[in-house]
Amino acid sequence: MDLAPHHHPFSVWSTRMPAPHLTPVSVIGLGSMGSALAGAFVRAGHPTTVWNRTAARTEPLVALGATRAADVEAAVAASPLVVTCLTTFDDTRQALGQAVAALPGRALVTLNSGSPAGARETAAWAAGHGARFLAGAVKNVPSAVGAPDTLLYYSGDRTVFDDFRAALDVLGGDTVHLGDEPDLAALYEMAVGAMLLPALVGFFQGAAAVQARGLEVASMVRFAGKWLDMIKSLLPVFAREIDTGDYTDAASSVNLFLTAEADDADLTEETNVETAWLAPMHDLVRRAVAAGHGDHSVSALTEVLRGPAPRA
Amino acid sequence: MDLAPHHHPFSVWSTRMPAPHLTPVSVIGLGSMGSALAGAFVRAGHPTTVWNRTAARTEPLVALGATRAADVEAAVAASPLVVTCLTTFDDTRQALGQAVAALPGRALVTLNSGSPAGARETAAWAAGHGARFLAGAVKNVPSAVGAPDTLLYYSGDRTVFDDFRAALDVLGGDTVHLGDEPDLAALYEMAVGAMLLPALVGFFQGAAAVQARGLEVASMVRFAGKWLDMIKSLLPVFAREIDTGDYTDAASSVNLFLTAEADDADLTEETNVETAWLAPMHDLVRRAVAAGHGDHSVSALTEVLRGPAPRA
Repeated sequence: MDLAPHHHPFSVWSTRMPAPHLTPVSVIGLGSMGSALAGAFVRAGHPTTVWNRTAARTEPLVALGATRAADVEAAVAASPLVVTCLTTFDDTRQALGQAVAALPGRALVTLNSGSPAGARETAAWAAGHGARFLAGAVKNVPSAVGAPDTLLYYSGDRTVFDDFRAALDVLGGDTVHLGDEPDLAALYEMAVGAMLLPALVGFFQGAAAVQARGLEVASMVRFAGKWLDMIKSLLPVFAREIDTGDYTDAASSVNLFLTAEADDADLTEETNVETAWLAPMHDLVRRAVAAGHGDHSVSALTEVLRGPAPRA
Repeated sequence: MDLAPHHHPFSVWSTRMPAPHLTPVSVIGLGSMGSALAGAFVRAGHPTTVWNRTAARTEPLVALGATRAADVEAAVAASPLVVTCLTTFDDTRQALGQAVAALPGRALVTLNSGSPAGARETAAWAAGHGARFLAGAVKNVPSAVGAPDTLLYYSGDRTVFDDFRAALDVLGGDTVHLGDEPDLAALYEMAVGAMLLPALVGFFQGAAAVQARGLEVASMVRFAGKWLDMIKSLLPVFAREIDTGDYTDAASSVNLFLTAEADDADLTEETNVETAWLAPMHDLVRRAVAAGHGDHSVSALTEVLRGPAPRA
């Protein structure tokens, strides 16, 4: 991995014109997350310009003190730091396609989901239009924007991260630059995010089961929270096992999960709750056993998930 | 739900013979969890008798001060409180089948995975043999046994929980009685436990993706831990939505998860990591949208998982 710093020819704001104490910021894309980001900038005192395809979404922010840009180009032109919060990288390039005249010298920060390939493509596109580029992700919900513990990570042009660090810190107190490769944040976003939908569906399945018994879902929240704490406590152990490839010191073996399928069938019989969505996971467990990992740590499932020709 | 206390005819130890300050305990089944339970009792000073099908597993505990029983019946006869930690309820009844002569008057506490039906069956079996019965679960790993924050929950005969509370507290500082119905702990165990395998496979998928880039899995542990904290923070909100059936105030909508399938395809293309195990979850999301939940909170997936004829 190339960790050498990027020296970008367009670092206008960092070299020719030092950012003022409170950097003007433009926020493009005002869904619930974009609105939260723009609101945080406004509340922190940053001159904030906003734009959204549906103009009505700018109103609460204008009421708060933001300035509404007439179009995307005006939004980009208004501030040295341009933060986009659109759905995908494709959407981002398409929206900014109407603002290319204003891009040279701007620092473009994208905060959206998307693939590493989309991040690389957008980085090249931004460079081609004379903008410095940083791709990031907010690792939390909109209501957590601005909190001291809220994590945002970025990758790409380090000078953007350094020059605008004070402004970026407004969005969350735990702000990290992962590296100069613009697609790293997208890679981590996918890697870390892979737990979300499966964990949620697991919780919803449990909720439906508890409800089927006539009990309140609220009664399982504390237990489920502690269960997540327990899972969290295992992650460093699993990471070490996967990093070293040594799965032999198994606190929880793959074999332990062989009974899970019968448990699911029991739960469905007991509560009528659907558990079929777990079938491919039971298949993974069986494949791991077949590959000789039965007595190994359950983290050896990683070996089964790994494709036949990884890059590394 | 029947929350009236059970008055069991065989409460010998609670009424005729008060438990001594440190109750003698027998532990049957010395896998890694059973060994941890027995070790905690020994270290806390409880006279502890142990039995395991493979006798070699008793040795470290005997070295610690436990007494090895010659057979299961001797183990059951040795203590008023008998804790089993076998794999299933079937295994438990089968092992104790050789000890029925010693069961009358004993308090039997099972700590194993298993279905609510298995717990009910074992409760009836224990009652038929004159034993009081409590079925529980350790909501943590063996190394956490005995820690102040470790959660164990139980359901069944409340007099067992009350009479032996001091001994049970040795196993973990967060000890809860869920109710007198003997299958409640098994129900919660399944409901809460449903997050485990999906969350782990999600983490392993992310680990494989990060490794495919030549990065250490350790580099994502902190981020994944915060991600679990974020998920934990959402659970009370989801529980309220599911309990009230009002999914309209959606911080994260079902529609937001419609892009997840394309993201998975991107991840597989980028890293060769298998994401096919997520396909049934994407199908759930689509079914929820088809059922009119697109703009609703993602917790509305519960409605799709719910069977056609729940008990409640």
